[in-house]
Amino acid sequence: MKISYPLVVLNFKNYGEAIGSRCLKLAKIAEKVSLDTGVTVAVCPNFVDLEKIARSVAIPVLAQHCDPYEPGAFTGSVVAENLREAKVSGSLLNHSEKRLKLSAIAAAVARLKRVGLFSLVCADDVSSAAAASALNPDALAIEPPELIGTGVSVSTARPEVVTKTVASVRKLNKEVHILCGAGVSTPDDVKKAILLGTEGVLLSSAYVKSRDPETLLRKMCEFSLV
Amino acid sequence: MKISYPLVVLNFKNYGEAIGSRCLKLAKIAEKVSLDTGVTVAVCPNFVDLEKIARSVAIPVLAQHCDPYEPGAFTGSVVAENLREAKVSGSLLNHSEKRLKLSAIAAAVARLKRVGLFSLVCADDVSSAAAASALNPDALAIEPPELIGTGVSVSTARPEVVTKTVASVRKLNKEVHILCGAGVSTPDDVKKAILLGTEGVLLSSAYVKSRDPETLLRKMCEFSLV
Amino acid sequence: MKISYPLVVLNFKNYGEAIGSRCLKLAKIAEKVSLDTGVTVAVCPNFVDLEKIARSVAIPVLAQHCDPYEPGAFTGSVVAENLREAKVSGSLLNHSEKRLKLSAIAAAVARLKRVGLFSLVCADDVSSAAAASALNPDALAIEPPELIGTGVSVSTARPEVVTKTVASVRKLNKEVHILCGAGVSTPDDVKKAILLGTEGVLLSSAYVKSRDPETLLRKMCEFSLV
Amino acid sequence: MKISYPLVVLNFKNYGEAIGSRCLKLAKIAEKVSLDTGVTVAVCPNFVDLEKIARSVAIPVLAQHCDPYEPGAFTGSVVAENLREAKVSGSLLNHSEKRLKLSAIAAAVARLKRVGLFSLVCADDVSSAAAASALNPDALAIEPPELIGTGVSVSTARPEVVTKTVASVRKLNKEVHILCGAGVSTPDDVKKAILLGTEGVLLSSAYVKSRDPETLLRKMCEFSLV
Repeated sequence: MKISYPLVVLNFKNYGEAIGSRCLKLAKIAEKVSLDTGVTVAVCPNFVDLEKIARSVAIPVLAQHCDPYEPGAFTGSVVAENLREAKVSGSLLNHSEKRLKLSAIAAAVARLKRVGLFSLVCADDVSSAAAASALNPDALAIEPPELIGTGVSVSTARPEVVTKTVASVRKLNKEVHILCGAGVSTPDDVKKAILLGTEGVLLSSAYVKSRDPETLLRKMCEFSLV
Repeated sequence: MKISYPLVVLNFKNYGEAIGSRCLKLAKIAEKVSLDTGVTVAVCPNFVDLEKIARSVAIPVLAQHCDPYEPGAFTGSVVAENLREAKVSGSLLNHSEKRLKLSAIAAAVARLKRVGLFSLVCADDVSSAAAASALNPDALAIEPPELIGTGVSVSTARPEVVTKTVASVRKLNKEVHILCGAGVSTPDDVKKAILLGTEGVLLSSAYVKSRDPETLLRKMCEFSLV
Repeated sequence: MKISYPLVVLNFKNYGEAIGSRCLKLAKIAEKVSLDTGVTVAVCPNFVDLEKIARSVAIPVLAQHCDPYEPGAFTGSVVAENLREAKVSGSLLNHSEKRLKLSAIAAAVARLKRVGLFSLVCADDVSSAAAASALNPDALAIEPPELIGTGVSVSTARPEVVTKTVASVRKLNKEVHILCGAGVSTPDDVKKAILLGTEGVLLSSAYVKSRDPETLLRKMCEFSLV
Repeated sequence: MKISYPLVVLNFKNYGEAIGSRCLKLAKIAEKVSLDTGVTVAVCPNFVDLEKIARSVAIPVLAQHCDPYEPGAFTGSVVAENLREAKVSGSLLNHSEKRLKLSAIAAAVARLKRVGLFSLVCADDVSSAAAASALNPDALAIEPPELIGTGVSVSTARPEVVTKTVASVRKLNKEVHILCGAGVSTPDDVKKAILLGTEGVLLSSAYVKSRDPETLLRKMCEFSLV
């Protein structure tokens, strides 16, 4: 499943609105909007619904987390081979609700790469983002944790965090794609994120809890094409 | 899915032999043997294959781990509601490869119970097993970690650990079911475990990596009926 | 250093008011009040000030945490032998700000016992306290985490949590001493805790941040002798 | 306490040979050798002995770990202010036996810097070292974990890991000092480490468990002046 930019990544977390049949419905809406607008939308379902969603939609599906192990005696883990076998395209890593040790991020990025999968590392400030970029993931998302889930977008509340991070990361790594996370709630937030030099957004509750997720996402995709 | 005793629990861990289509095959064999012998066999697939297996077999399917949260902003988690929605029967908790904080075991047992699911708490010594029994899970598994994956069964190598644990637990909790884990490899290990006062076994590599898992499991089920 | 009951345990946490010379001053006040009132007061300084405090006061000094290891290649750890060598009397375990895995609590209690030191395990609800009591620590502290640091005492706000916990624990363990933690702020909270069947209290900010810690502690000690 | 290069850092871990009075003796030997040879030797005692050692020797003393918090309600933690108050010069971070989350390393480096202390971040491979260098610590130590405690030095067994790491780090950060850890056992290992482009070594058991630590360290210091 090809990932292109601008990219809109929808993290379903483990919200009750995104479990079981509701998870599939939200993924199907994302697929429809992506096909209509031509903007790549990736969805990140919970682990239990992950395989079913990957079978059911023609857009990239990402895990919310991936452990740094090879297949083996790792009870309760999710490894790159689980994802590949289920046609999952890759994984978020180091989300603010699932922070990882530096050595685990390094190993998980390497393992996803080895099996041909996409890695998107979240980071919460300028220096962590710079550090994460040195691990050569496919993409980074900047998420100041104090804005996550607030409905206040980093691109609006603290545009300087975004521009500084883009500048810091670009000094170390010219190729990594940079997304803007934390508080992305409106189509306008998406537009601002792109204008600040990022290549897309990572959002969650604004989509999952929206009364009209299709209209919201459609506008977000359109506004990403600034 | 009713759980009765003697009970044979097969933890597939994240072995390469139990990912994707191989996972389904191992689960189907377990289902066949269970139906043939009348002994309940439960399977514990990795998270990504979990929902598919629960849809595909008529034996209890358990998660390998469950987080103690309600549905919500918990990226990378698996909660009781994920399991219920996917018709998964319950979960292992505190496996030696996924040890949990005491407060997390207490909360996860309570949450599984609240949504009507089965909890099986692993413990690695007499005092931890006694402590875990005070949390009132449905079942306990005794797994001295130094024997896990060794092919040496606790029921054979250290029968006194089993009898002491059964005695200690029974003083505190008359109702919890007690299984024997760690190193269970042969039908004879199963028989010994039952004779030592447990009501079943928890095993992993002996089944997953067997060249003839069906024959092995069939004999184990038969030997459990001592 | 003998520990007797009623017992008042002062957790200094890592508050700025209890670092370095201020730590020593707070410990000296506790020593004075203990000697004056005849009530045992134990102090729990941060790790760096721990040895100095243990050399400087004639009351029990406890660590805030202890790892479950033997001496060895455990960078950044504190083990029972460190405490014994420094004349520290024992340790808190599983404080709500330093929650431990069940297996670590079990092992740390056992290791402290083996070197002759005192263990005080914190637990946040009835079932965790019951479980912890099965590990046979010297003492337990009940601390509903939603009350910690609020200035609202569990003995006042939720007396039923205290009485239920005492009853549950006593069914499993007749000998463990039970303290009341979380929100203990006034001499009256101490009195209530004792009347509800506990043998002392564990408190922190009320003492550390008091403008007159000596008067507060003196009254608390007096009120503990109901 | 000024830190200059070449630098020999002695991590005492929590070996029985380095607890209490034995800890002080090992620190005193290090002080003597440092004064005699003019090479800076820093010692890293366990937390409980840390303050006493910092009062007793005229060489840099480092903590083995530092939490990323400000002073406050963090039971069982060690923060930068504890170290500063005790005249400790700084801290190791992310040692292989105390791995940290990326966000914790970033925050701890920043907090140590803010209070004027030295930070030495350990990393286990080329990409983690590059990432850590982006956090701008004072120094880095390269420690392939498969060599730690083996008596086989990375500078001897895998010189290419050292040269690659030096090259990778130098691309991103011209100023960070780079040390060589893992398996450093002999004066010759120290010499090789310097010749491969590092500015010193981090070692542990070879010194702590030596029958003649003074002679060993003296030769190591001399061999560091290649």
